[in-house]
Amino acid sequence: MNKETAVSITLPETVQVFRNLKTAKRFAIDIGGSLTKIAYYSTVPCRRVSYDKDSCEDHQNENFTYTLSEGARLHFVKFETKYITDCLNFIAAHLVNSHEDMTGKSIKATGGGAYKYTDLIQEKLGLSVDKEDEMACLIKGCNFLLKNISDEAFVYHRNGNPEYEFQTAHTNIFPYLLVNIGSGVSIMKVESEEKYERIGGTATGGGTFWGLGSLLTKAKGFDELLKLAEKGEHRHVDLLVRDIYGGDCKVLGLPGDVIASSFGRVCQSRETNENVTDEDVARSLLFVISNDIGQIASLYAMMNNLKKVYFGGYFLRNHPLSMHTISYSINYWSRGSVQSLFLRHEGYLGAIGAFLKGAEEWDGDKYSWLENYAGSSGLKTGSVLLDSNVPVHQLELDRWESALTYCPLLLEPANYIPDTVDLNADQEAREYWLHCFEEKIDTFVSRAISSQPNNATAVERAELFKEKYIKRLHHLKVQPFAYGNLTVRSLLDTIEHYLREFDFPDPFLLQRQQENEFALMSLKERLDELDAMDTKERHKDLIISFLAGNIFDWGAKEIARMLETNTFGFNEAKAKVPERPWLIDNLDEWLVRMTGPAYSKVAIFVDNSGADIVLGVIPFVRELLRHNTKVILCANSAPALNDVMHTEMVILLKKISALCPVIEAAVTCGKLIVMENAQSGPCLDLSRLGKEIADELRTTDLIVLEGMGRAVHTNLEAKFTCDSLKIAVIKNSWLAKRLGGNMFAVICKYEKGIKQ
Amino acid sequence: MNKETAVSITLPETVQVFRNLKTAKRFAIDIGGSLTKIAYYSTVPCRRVSYDKDSCEDHQNENFTYTLSEGARLHFVKFETKYITDCLNFIAAHLVNSHEDMTGKSIKATGGGAYKYTDLIQEKLGLSVDKEDEMACLIKGCNFLLKNISDEAFVYHRNGNPEYEFQTAHTNIFPYLLVNIGSGVSIMKVESEEKYERIGGTATGGGTFWGLGSLLTKAKGFDELLKLAEKGEHRHVDLLVRDIYGGDCKVLGLPGDVIASSFGRVCQSRETNENVTDEDVARSLLFVISNDIGQIASLYAMMNNLKKVYFGGYFLRNHPLSMHTISYSINYWSRGSVQSLFLRHEGYLGAIGAFLKGAEEWDGDKYSWLENYAGSSGLKTGSVLLDSNVPVHQLELDRWESALTYCPLLLEPANYIPDTVDLNADQEAREYWLHCFEEKIDTFVSRAISSQPNNATAVERAELFKEKYIKRLHHLKVQPFAYGNLTVRSLLDTIEHYLREFDFPDPFLLQRQQENEFALMSLKERLDELDAMDTKERHKDLIISFLAGNIFDWGAKEIARMLETNTFGFNEAKAKVPERPWLIDNLDEWLVRMTGPAYSKVAIFVDNSGADIVLGVIPFVRELLRHNTKVILCANSAPALNDVMHTEMVILLKKISALCPVIEAAVTCGKLIVMENAQSGPCLDLSRLGKEIADELRTTDLIVLEGMGRAVHTNLEAKFTCDSLKIAVIKNSWLAKRLGGNMFAVICKYEKGIKQ
Repeated sequence: MNKETAVSITLPETVQVFRNLKTAKRFAIDIGGSLTKIAYYSTVPCRRVSYDKDSCEDHQNENFTYTLSEGARLHFVKFETKYITDCLNFIAAHLVNSHEDMTGKSIKATGGGAYKYTDLIQEKLGLSVDKEDEMACLIKGCNFLLKNISDEAFVYHRNGNPEYEFQTAHTNIFPYLLVNIGSGVSIMKVESEEKYERIGGTATGGGTFWGLGSLLTKAKGFDELLKLAEKGEHRHVDLLVRDIYGGDCKVLGLPGDVIASSFGRVCQSRETNENVTDEDVARSLLFVISNDIGQIASLYAMMNNLKKVYFGGYFLRNHPLSMHTISYSINYWSRGSVQSLFLRHEGYLGAIGAFLKGAEEWDGDKYSWLENYAGSSGLKTGSVLLDSNVPVHQLELDRWESALTYCPLLLEPANYIPDTVDLNADQEAREYWLHCFEEKIDTFVSRAISSQPNNATAVERAELFKEKYIKRLHHLKVQPFAYGNLTVRSLLDTIEHYLREFDFPDPFLLQRQQENEFALMSLKERLDELDAMDTKERHKDLIISFLAGNIFDWGAKEIARMLETNTFGFNEAKAKVPERPWLIDNLDEWLVRMTGPAYSKVAIFVDNSGADIVLGVIPFVRELLRHNTKVILCANSAPALNDVMHTEMVILLKKISALCPVIEAAVTCGKLIVMENAQSGPCLDLSRLGKEIADELRTTDLIVLEGMGRAVHTNLEAKFTCDSLKIAVIKNSWLAKRLGGNMFAVICKYEKGIKQ
Repeated sequence: MNKETAVSITLPETVQVFRNLKTAKRFAIDIGGSLTKIAYYSTVPCRRVSYDKDSCEDHQNENFTYTLSEGARLHFVKFETKYITDCLNFIAAHLVNSHEDMTGKSIKATGGGAYKYTDLIQEKLGLSVDKEDEMACLIKGCNFLLKNISDEAFVYHRNGNPEYEFQTAHTNIFPYLLVNIGSGVSIMKVESEEKYERIGGTATGGGTFWGLGSLLTKAKGFDELLKLAEKGEHRHVDLLVRDIYGGDCKVLGLPGDVIASSFGRVCQSRETNENVTDEDVARSLLFVISNDIGQIASLYAMMNNLKKVYFGGYFLRNHPLSMHTISYSINYWSRGSVQSLFLRHEGYLGAIGAFLKGAEEWDGDKYSWLENYAGSSGLKTGSVLLDSNVPVHQLELDRWESALTYCPLLLEPANYIPDTVDLNADQEAREYWLHCFEEKIDTFVSRAISSQPNNATAVERAELFKEKYIKRLHHLKVQPFAYGNLTVRSLLDTIEHYLREFDFPDPFLLQRQQENEFALMSLKERLDELDAMDTKERHKDLIISFLAGNIFDWGAKEIARMLETNTFGFNEAKAKVPERPWLIDNLDEWLVRMTGPAYSKVAIFVDNSGADIVLGVIPFVRELLRHNTKVILCANSAPALNDVMHTEMVILLKKISALCPVIEAAVTCGKLIVMENAQSGPCLDLSRLGKEIADELRTTDLIVLEGMGRAVHTNLEAKFTCDSLKIAVIKNSWLAKRLGGNMFAVICKYEKGIKQ
């Protein structure tokens, strides 16, 4: 019996902001002169579906179980300070239903407004207010984002391709200069978590831009002023070098189009400057402020020998023109020696820091954090509305219950990028993949519905899932940079986030189970076939089979169609593996290597369930085990499409052990183990592995990456310190052509490890 | 016969600006976006009056001669660029009468406008335009002013006493940072005359202040905008630290009244900010620009390890609020490690530099320059008007025909200040002296008139002299800092400048001659008296006589009255010398020293003609000569009151030689010589001596300073590396009381040299 009814499934809240307030446990608030940010922690009911282990010998389809666990989530909500009363009212109203008793509890507060609004917070939420040092909060928040959040920081290239050059998250982030541009500007030198200092600042900040802008133009708000600035022509207002010197000023090394004097062209009243528009004035004003901050920041950076300047605070709000001006200014005045970096979540630094002030254990080695693409606003995203009139932005981070770290086998961890193609920069690829994912969505929808046949809300939730995901795809079409690097990986992760959000924890579970069972039926025969071959022939056939197995992939649109015919078996797949030479063909080098001394430990990052794992990977593993090689099967921690999951892999090995004594022996004596790789999507990000698997990998001398999600979309170009074997069949004709091949093009990339 | 008729005396030009255009010889122009500065060189007819040397044996009163020589003068005229056509027309019109043919000649031009106005200049003046590098001109001009002009640079202390702390001119001026604030800002590092570099700048400058100010307020001009700023309350507009934190922000170390965000308080349209006035906005705007420039300048200074930042350019125009803000900002951001210095003639840097570009020989060791107080505008002085409507400021520098240098005997030349009392800081003294000089002016007027009895314009010129000088005194009452340190010395120098300006080259000549002749009659008898004394008595009497001689001083108001009675002789003067102990009384130490080994070389800076030099100094000199000491009599180069002049001293020694064989022998063998001290006023500035006398002083082992102008007003506190004797009778009861004594209080200050 399908046990899903054991857990009630309700529709998600219709209000999409201030989510999960019912389980909100701990609050922090950062009240700026302009924007307020509220942080809280909630527990998210998280359904997990799995084989019913007690009945794993039972070959019926219905034996899977839904269990309910709790995930931890951090919520950050940002809104204009003028709406603070509305927002506090909203929170108070929703907290009424909370199981938590807030009485006697406190809220961490930072930002200038923490002083002004203390009474209001106490009155509305009944929480006492603990004021936290603003600078410490900002820096704590910045460190947290830089270390934890993928693609948090970026270099901005106006008219560049990509426009946004995102930086990989890293633990080695110090030293840096943090420039927080709020109403005024604070400049802080950060040397470590504990060692930092405010070394400067200026009163010419966001407040100056808006203050002067509101006196000079008709703009009704900060963003309106920024919009004006986008349309203006500053040359109507500013005096350029060429206005003075008739061209470049060579003696001073100043090009003609450099601003000599901001507003220097306006020298009478506004009436006599009829051609000067609000737009021109706003643009020139933006240049004054941004140039100034950029120059001062670059001087402080140079004085302190710092190469990186991060910008935070409400002024920039990731406004392209402002970022460009500041970047230009920093680059100009530092003569290229200082890099300006912006943050996708610049507005949240203080709130994150304040929250962590009360939760230091969350800011260490114990957990990692993943941006929830379903619940977070993108860069430049229009706001979600709270009630009828309060625009709100949000950021949600899901806690990963262990610390994540780099794969120790990577040659250059600092420069590792877990994506082969940057869809921000590659317009053709972007258009293809966005279209492709949109086309494929209905498969997910029907799969999701059929995974919960007895659930009354499944259809409705699946439709909501589709609507939201397509909306996101359309958003990414316009702003591909909205959530960091746009990649096949991020698009796949986003599907997983949405599926979980709409309570489809694992639509492919049943299918994976069926495929595994089906493949297991042929395993014995397959192993016998291999044993009949001579060594060289067998080694070659193992690779062909590995590839043939990888053809079975419900995730690939064109394959799914073939598989649905039910006439496509393992031998049909082997026949589909093209003649050599393959697109990337290091088979000969691999076969030579196989005649040499055996590897001592091999880690295989496995791909799909069914024929892939059972008929492709297992025989390969068996061959390694026979040479006394230790093998680690690295499988996904959380479900993603038909990728074989860690828990399934364990069950599967039990079943295979019954069929194959080599496997059985290896499992028994620990020569063959399964480890979870901390991935929750079908792609492999080698910068985010669990500590345990990372430790095990340290002594591995061959790493095998299998399938498009592990070897093509992500790590095709990754270099390792040990030998590596990347095996995949490209089951997408567009991508195959892109790489110079045809449908079913083969990647068989074997490389020697590069010693450091 | 009075020979003054040999030179025609005309009334000075009624137009007081663009003076001496008729003899203008070489032009330079610095055209800024706002202000234009024109520089030219003229020869000034300079009458000198002297004894007729051929008839020096003739004791008649009428034997003095007027000779005409030419002085060189540099003129700098500053006006708003919008009047450039008027000014060029004016120059062209007055050049018509010039003896110089301008055809084929060129004008050095610098500043942004040099490019724009090339054609206009060529058309109006018929001069071809040689464009000069702006930065090189600015720096050349700045170096020139710092090295040559007394009190050019100053530290500004708002509400301080003194408000203006002027710096002594010095040859050792490098390295420094020059910040030129025009429409935009250029920041230059200057390491030597040849080595300099533009290391930065900002487009937020004077043009921004005026551009934004003209959009935001009703001000019709830059100065009007500054005036608004003086009256405003920036707190209506700016967000202070205390507005955010409720007080000081201790964590960030920010006092509550520091601006957190300029204009940060204005956050709606002007209409909804009704209490915000133009004045408030102008003040906040001034703060934005000044703070910003100060901060950026201090960062560049610190990065380059420079301790001094000089500011030039049209923005500051010595506006107190701007200077205060910049000084505060520099001090704040550099934590006191960088000093901000302003220049009285900041507007002229480029024009001076451009002029010198064509006249490098003027910018070296050959000449020195003295500010002509009569022809120069003061700091913050209202402009003189050209024709009916063009306001003009000017600076005139008179060339001194040799290079001037520090007295080599000064213990600390760099810290030498040639004035005992700073009338800027000492309000009581200032009021007294300004009143005193105003009272005394009529004496000068009548003396001036009577010095030219046969001249038809003498009365009219003397009245003009009086009018102008009194006007200057009244101006100094309000703005004592207008011409640098206000001191008794500067007030006396100013009289001399005005007298020369109105063609009274030496009103006291006749009187000096008469007094000398009168005193000579008693010399023989006086010497005999001394010879009759024993050594100790004689040494003491020599000092008493020295003091008695110094009582004869027409420059001192109260003495002049006594002398006019004609019943006051040398013995009456000796009787006036008060009983010991004197106000400063080192007589005993001096007498002991006189029993020791004789000095090898003594330099005496002598004071008045008549009894002072003949009966006071000469017997003292004769005693030194008898001990085989070489004696140098250091006398004024140019006439000043009844101070014995160098040329007169030569004649006088001839006459004394006839009466005294010791003197005769010493003059003959060069043991007694007369040297000119390069002073042209009654005070002694030991930082401006001729090279020749400075060389001679190097081997001097006693320096004697005589009289109020040399020993009291100026060098009372000066320390020397050789022994020094300061001898003076204070012939002003106010000053005597001020110093703790009575009328005729005696200074007899003998000090041992301090070895370095």
